[in-house]
Amino acid sequence: MVSFTVFKGSKDGSIQKSTTSKAALTGNQVRVRVTASGVCGTDEHYRELDMVLGHEGMGVIEEVGPEVQHSKKGDRVGWGYETNACGHCEFCLSGRETFCPERELYGTGNFDQGSFAHQAIWNESFLFKIPDSIPDEEAAPLMCGGATVFNALRMYDIQPDSRVGVIGIGGLGHLAIQFAAKMGCEVVVFSSSESKREEAISFGATEFFATKGLRELDIGRKIDCLLVTSSFQPDWTFYLPLMNMDSVIFPLSVSSGNLEIPYMPIIAQGIRIQGALVASRGIHTRMLAFAAQHHIKPTIMTYPMSVDGITEAMQKLNDGKIRYRAVLLPEKA
Amino acid sequence: MVSFTVFKGSKDGSIQKSTTSKAALTGNQVRVRVTASGVCGTDEHYRELDMVLGHEGMGVIEEVGPEVQHSKKGDRVGWGYETNACGHCEFCLSGRETFCPERELYGTGNFDQGSFAHQAIWNESFLFKIPDSIPDEEAAPLMCGGATVFNALRMYDIQPDSRVGVIGIGGLGHLAIQFAAKMGCEVVVFSSSESKREEAISFGATEFFATKGLRELDIGRKIDCLLVTSSFQPDWTFYLPLMNMDSVIFPLSVSSGNLEIPYMPIIAQGIRIQGALVASRGIHTRMLAFAAQHHIKPTIMTYPMSVDGITEAMQKLNDGKIRYRAVLLPEKA
Repeated sequence: MVSFTVFKGSKDGSIQKSTTSKAALTGNQVRVRVTASGVCGTDEHYRELDMVLGHEGMGVIEEVGPEVQHSKKGDRVGWGYETNACGHCEFCLSGRETFCPERELYGTGNFDQGSFAHQAIWNESFLFKIPDSIPDEEAAPLMCGGATVFNALRMYDIQPDSRVGVIGIGGLGHLAIQFAAKMGCEVVVFSSSESKREEAISFGATEFFATKGLRELDIGRKIDCLLVTSSFQPDWTFYLPLMNMDSVIFPLSVSSGNLEIPYMPIIAQGIRIQGALVASRGIHTRMLAFAAQHHIKPTIMTYPMSVDGITEAMQKLNDGKIRYRAVLLPEKA
Repeated sequence: MVSFTVFKGSKDGSIQKSTTSKAALTGNQVRVRVTASGVCGTDEHYRELDMVLGHEGMGVIEEVGPEVQHSKKGDRVGWGYETNACGHCEFCLSGRETFCPERELYGTGNFDQGSFAHQAIWNESFLFKIPDSIPDEEAAPLMCGGATVFNALRMYDIQPDSRVGVIGIGGLGHLAIQFAAKMGCEVVVFSSSESKREEAISFGATEFFATKGLRELDIGRKIDCLLVTSSFQPDWTFYLPLMNMDSVIFPLSVSSGNLEIPYMPIIAQGIRIQGALVASRGIHTRMLAFAAQHHIKPTIMTYPMSVDGITEAMQKLNDGKIRYRAVLLPEKA
């Protein structure tokens, strides 16, 4: 019997300390001691459910199940939004397992495990070895935030000569700027106010525009690829005229309701609106190597892995006060 | 001095007989005697403007300008929605001249020329030689309707093993079914009523669904590629559950207002919404060869090239009574 502390959502949205227990590891399961966890906007969407929160996990393997082949005790591993897939469908077989009909995503699969926890048990096939040069607390935010923005650029063949727009500088946006800049792209950043200008430039932005109150904007050469990483849908009538012909928009925000976007410009400009998720494992692995090679790292604020620490981190995130990713670290024993 | 009869729109939407005159051909211009013209839904959108209507042209070259190099008197040629481009921008240079910022499209460029006319004068570089096996009246509807649906499939790399959905059986839809079927695709057709079932199957549809009154539908294997060719936007909440993961939707209808589509399914299913236009010339040329090879032909209803003929054809199109493309033919002398 193994038991460990986890932190769950609850009906009233308060964070609850709880315990996950398991008789023994089976099959290809491994047990990971959590050393860091990012706090993502998506966690907020699940905090009223009775499930373990957190999906930007980082840790060290403590124990391996009887059929584990590729992992061993002591390995530094991370995991993200997807933690299982069938392995046999057309998507799994073509390296697109994030589209597997039986995929296990955060909030849809295993409610007893998560990265807001002291430990977690996962299928070894959905864990990623972390390059030595990336410390735990900087690796965690790459597992979902980093993987999402890298995937948009990489899976959909955005080219180094593209002019990439990034709307919003938060957990995803500040990594998107770094990845796109290191890929060779021009990076045009749109933020509501001037407050993040200097940091945006330090991340690699070639241009920065504060958009609050603007009805229109001349940015010169138009955008080939737009990553929408704000926490809400942007004013499309403002952004469509900034898009190049035959360009692509990635709406990466989580948002309810409809996508409402002027219809004819989409046709006349030949614009592609591309729904995109986190990275499949092949691309995720490339993302980690690229981040290590180019010293791409999240800017983080750390909080203790406790009810109070989680509550404070999520509150700050809701208040827009995180620069730029909250990371939970185990309390000292 | 050359003068010829043309047919224009007008403020009250009535068709007006008029005359286009030109002192002499210059540069790479050629003068074409019109032998057939398709009538497209887009013509309706311009009938209140003082411009020559028609953009599915077919004819024979009567005269060539001083710098014409690739055309000669007597050539059978067609033309479509785009009739000029700069030749020097990134889009022209990469075979995507439909996205040229200086493109001359129907309704934006030359208001004195059109295919609702006895003759027309165009840049030879935007005329297409028509395969001998395709008669004039069957070539005309390929120049815009055929080019649009073929381009969606071809430019965006739809594969022969795809399951292709077609919404609406009209000028575009009945050609889309034929092209997709001959490319090897399964073709699933959605029409409001049962009235076109047999014809859809004869065009190559593998399945046919009458959707009127349905709230949901089980079509088995899901759609990889959906061509929306209806004259209005479909009920997206009905169609999104029919779409495969990592699939693509081409909204080919001309429609005002917003595209309004449920947001999160686009993300969760990794759906691509791809705005698309008519074909660039390289793809257009392939379309004509493919149509000739596979005996793809529009089903047409013919009307005389006259004020009365045009008026009647456009009225029938508005009334939904065209099976499936109206074609104007010169009146006997």
